[in-house]
Amino acid sequence: MALSVILRLEMDKNKVSFGQLATTISEAEGDIVAIDVIHQGRETTTRDVTVNVRNQDHSEHMIDEVKKLDGVKLINVSDRTFLMHIGGKLEMKPRLPIKNRDDLSHVYTPGVARVCTAIHEDESKAFSLTIKRNTVAVVSDGTAVLGLGDIGPRAAMPVMEGKAVLFKQMAEIDAYPICLDTTDTEEIIRTIKAIAPGFGGINLEDISSPRCFEIEDRLKEELDIPVFHDDQHGTAVVLLAGLLNALKIVEKKLSDVKVVVTGIGAAGVACTKMLLSAGIENVICVDRHGTLVDTETYDNPMWNWCASRTNPDRVKGTLHEIIEGADVFIGISGPGVLTVEDVKRMAENPIVFALANPTPEIDPEEAEPHVRVMATGRSDYPNQINNVLCFPGIFRGALDCRATTINEEMKLAAAQAIASTVTDDELNESYIVPSVFNEEVAPRIREAVIRAAIETKVARRIPKEFR
Amino acid sequence: MALSVILRLEMDKNKVSFGQLATTISEAEGDIVAIDVIHQGRETTTRDVTVNVRNQDHSEHMIDEVKKLDGVKLINVSDRTFLMHIGGKLEMKPRLPIKNRDDLSHVYTPGVARVCTAIHEDESKAFSLTIKRNTVAVVSDGTAVLGLGDIGPRAAMPVMEGKAVLFKQMAEIDAYPICLDTTDTEEIIRTIKAIAPGFGGINLEDISSPRCFEIEDRLKEELDIPVFHDDQHGTAVVLLAGLLNALKIVEKKLSDVKVVVTGIGAAGVACTKMLLSAGIENVICVDRHGTLVDTETYDNPMWNWCASRTNPDRVKGTLHEIIEGADVFIGISGPGVLTVEDVKRMAENPIVFALANPTPEIDPEEAEPHVRVMATGRSDYPNQINNVLCFPGIFRGALDCRATTINEEMKLAAAQAIASTVTDDELNESYIVPSVFNEEVAPRIREAVIRAAIETKVARRIPKEFR
Repeated sequence: MALSVILRLEMDKNKVSFGQLATTISEAEGDIVAIDVIHQGRETTTRDVTVNVRNQDHSEHMIDEVKKLDGVKLINVSDRTFLMHIGGKLEMKPRLPIKNRDDLSHVYTPGVARVCTAIHEDESKAFSLTIKRNTVAVVSDGTAVLGLGDIGPRAAMPVMEGKAVLFKQMAEIDAYPICLDTTDTEEIIRTIKAIAPGFGGINLEDISSPRCFEIEDRLKEELDIPVFHDDQHGTAVVLLAGLLNALKIVEKKLSDVKVVVTGIGAAGVACTKMLLSAGIENVICVDRHGTLVDTETYDNPMWNWCASRTNPDRVKGTLHEIIEGADVFIGISGPGVLTVEDVKRMAENPIVFALANPTPEIDPEEAEPHVRVMATGRSDYPNQINNVLCFPGIFRGALDCRATTINEEMKLAAAQAIASTVTDDELNESYIVPSVFNEEVAPRIREAVIRAAIETKVARRIPKEFR
Repeated sequence: MALSVILRLEMDKNKVSFGQLATTISEAEGDIVAIDVIHQGRETTTRDVTVNVRNQDHSEHMIDEVKKLDGVKLINVSDRTFLMHIGGKLEMKPRLPIKNRDDLSHVYTPGVARVCTAIHEDESKAFSLTIKRNTVAVVSDGTAVLGLGDIGPRAAMPVMEGKAVLFKQMAEIDAYPICLDTTDTEEIIRTIKAIAPGFGGINLEDISSPRCFEIEDRLKEELDIPVFHDDQHGTAVVLLAGLLNALKIVEKKLSDVKVVVTGIGAAGVACTKMLLSAGIENVICVDRHGTLVDTETYDNPMWNWCASRTNPDRVKGTLHEIIEGADVFIGISGPGVLTVEDVKRMAENPIVFALANPTPEIDPEEAEPHVRVMATGRSDYPNQINNVLCFPGIFRGALDCRATTINEEMKLAAAQAIASTVTDDELNESYIVPSVFNEEVAPRIREAVIRAAIETKVARRIPKEFR
C-alpha cells in the first residue's frame, strides 16, 4: 500500500516559492497529489500538501529534505490512514428519536417499565425487544493483533473497530468492540460471560494461542449464544472454500488428496479440523520439529489432538522430507518455510496456500511457474484467503435463526456457500474465491448457515422463508 | 401516560360491520385513533385498529369485549411502547464507509497496523484515534431497575438502551449499554475494569444499595476515567439545581436553612453530600427509625458517615417530631411519609421535594395549598427532578477535557449551570428547573464542568476555548 502523508507547511513568501518546494519534494521522489491553501497571510502562506510516498522511511526522508528549505516551517504531518481513524470509526445511532415528552414516556420511563417486565417474565423476549437480536461483541485482549503481537487492549481497538465496521457494512450486524485489560484465561472467560446478556453472539479476535482454545471451548459450553474465534474458524472456512474450488480446477477428489499443513497454531488446528470435517482423509500436520505422529506425546494438547486424527500412514520427518507427492500445501506458519525445490517434488498440479502474513511461506513470484493454483493472505496477489469473506455472513445466519452455537456443520455450509459464489464459468487458477466486496457472499452464507443450524437443531427460531 | 394498543383484527364481512366493532370499542371506553386496512379479502378484511386506553386493565377489558363479537378474530395485540422497542433502540453506524480495497487497506489491514503501533507507543493516543474519545459505558447489573427492583440483566437492557439514546440525543455522546450477568461486588468491579480500555467514561446505573457505594468508590480509585453512579449523583445534582432556584424564590440563604432529608439510601446519601458541598450547614437525615445522630453507631457505614457530618444540634426523633421549623423537606423514600400536618408545621414558605416514584411522599394536590415550592420526580407535575437534565452534559464536559474523574466541584458546577438556565424572569414556583428538552442545558453544564475540572486539575486536555 502506498502511503499518503499530508504536510501542513507555513511558507515565508519572501524566502521560498512554491516551485522550490515542489522541486524539493519531487527530487525526494515524493508525488504531490493535492494542495490546499489553509491560510493566506501578508508574509506567509499556510498550505496542506498531500504527498504519496513509498513507505514510512521514504516519508521521513522526504520530510527531512523539506525541512532543510529556508523559509519553510513544518507545522504538522498527518497521513490519510491516521486521519481516517481520528475520533474512532464507529458511532451509536438511536433507531428512533426522542423528540418530546410523549416519546420519552414510551422509550424511557415510565413506558419502558412494561417492556422490562415483559422480558423479566420471558427472557427469550430479549431477542425481540432489545438490541441483542442483531448485536455481536468483538472481543480481544490485544495479545495477538495482526502481525504485531501483544500490543495490549488500547492499541487493539482500531482493529476491533474496523471489524465492527465490516460487520455492519457486509451484513447489517451491529458489532461492538470490547478490548479487555486482562490476559488471564479465567478472567477473560468470566468477563465475557458477565457482559453476554446484551449480545446475540461473541466474536473472539486476536487472542494468543493456546489460551484462545480454552477460552473458546469454555464459552461455547457455558453460554447459549454463538462464540466464534475468527482467527481460527474464519480462516479455516475461507481456506476450505478456496480449496474446494482449487480441487475442482485440478479435478481431484477430497478423499484422494494428500494435504500437508504447516504451522499448527490456533489457525492451523482449526484448518486441520475443517479439512477433516470436509472429508479429506490424508492430512499431515507439520510443525517446527516435523510431522505430528500419534506414536508421540506432545506438551501442547492440541498437537496430540491433531496427531491422533491425522497422518494415517504415521509419516515421520521434516516438511522437506515428506512434501514428496503432496497434492496440497497449506502454510499458516512463516516466511521461507517452503522452497521451490519442495514445490517441484509435489504431485502433479500442485496447490499451494501460503497464508503467512505479510510474507508468505514462499515468494508467490518464485512459486508461480511451478504451481497450478496459488493462494495467499495478501490483497496484492490473486486468491486472497481473507476472513472478511466469512464472519459477516456466518453471524448473519446465526443471529437470524437465534442459533445457540456455530457448529462444524454451519462452518462447512459457509465454506461451500463461499465456494459456490464462484461460478464454473468464472472459476480459474487466479479466481478461486470471490472478492470481499461481492455482495452475494454474505446472503449465500446466511442461507446455508441457517439451513445447517435448523438441521442440526441449534436454531431457536425458524425464519419465515425456511418454514 | 395513556396506553396505545394496536389490535390486528380479521373481520368476517358477512357477520360483522366495522360500525359494530367501533361501537363495541367505544362502549368499552376505548378511543379509536387510527385504522389501517392490512388485507382486503373476498370474505374477510384484516385491519389494524389503534385504540387509546387508560391502562393495562382497561385494555384487557376492551379486548375481551371485542373478542365477544361474532365474526371478529383477534390476530394480534401490540402497543406503541412495545413497537418502539422492537429490535432494540440503538444501532452502530460506521463513521466512514469501506467502499473499495483502498478504503479497506487504510481502515483495516494492513494500514490499521500503523495506527495500532502509534497507540502502543503512546497510550494517550487512544483518546484521539479510537472511539474512546466519545464513548461511555452504561453499566447495570439489573438489581434496582426503575421501581421494578431486581429484574436481572436481560430485562434491564431496555432502560440502558434508552439511556444511551438520551446520551446521544442530548449531548452527542456514544454510549453503549452493558448489562452484567453477576451481582457480586468484586466480580462487577473486575468486569468493568476489564472492559474499560475502550471507554472514556463509566455510567453506573440501577445497581442496588449498598453494593453501589463500594463499586463506585473502588472503580473511581482504580480507573483513570470518570465513573458516575447516575442514580446517586444525577439525582443529587438536579435536586441541588432545583433547590438553589427554590431558595431564590423564598429569599433564603443556603447557610441559614434547615433541611430534612428522608430516605438515606444511595440517592439520599449522595444528595446529603451534595447539600453539604453546596454550603448547607443544617441538614438532618431521617430514616425509618428516626434521625441519624453521631452519638449512635449504625450497621450501615453510610449512615455513620451521614451522622458524623450532619445534624449539628444532635436532634433526635421521628420525622414528625423534628419537621417543626424546617425550611426544606427532601424525600427520597416512599409514599405517605410526609403528612399535610407535617407541612403545616414547617417554617414559612416551605419547600417540599417529594421525589419518591411513582408515588411521592405526599400527594402534590394535598400539599399544594400549604407549600410555597413543590417538586417531584414525576413528569405530570411541575418541577420534575429528572436525571436526564444532568448526565448528558456532565459527561460531555468530562469527555471533552479528558477528565480522570467527576469530582464534587464538577457536580456542584453542573448543578449551578442547570439552575442558571432558568432566568430571573422565568423563575417562579412552578418553574425552578428547565425542561429536559431545553437545548441550552447540556452545553452550559459542559462549560461549567470543564472549568471546574481544569481548576481542580483533573483535566488531561484543555479544550481550545478554555486556553
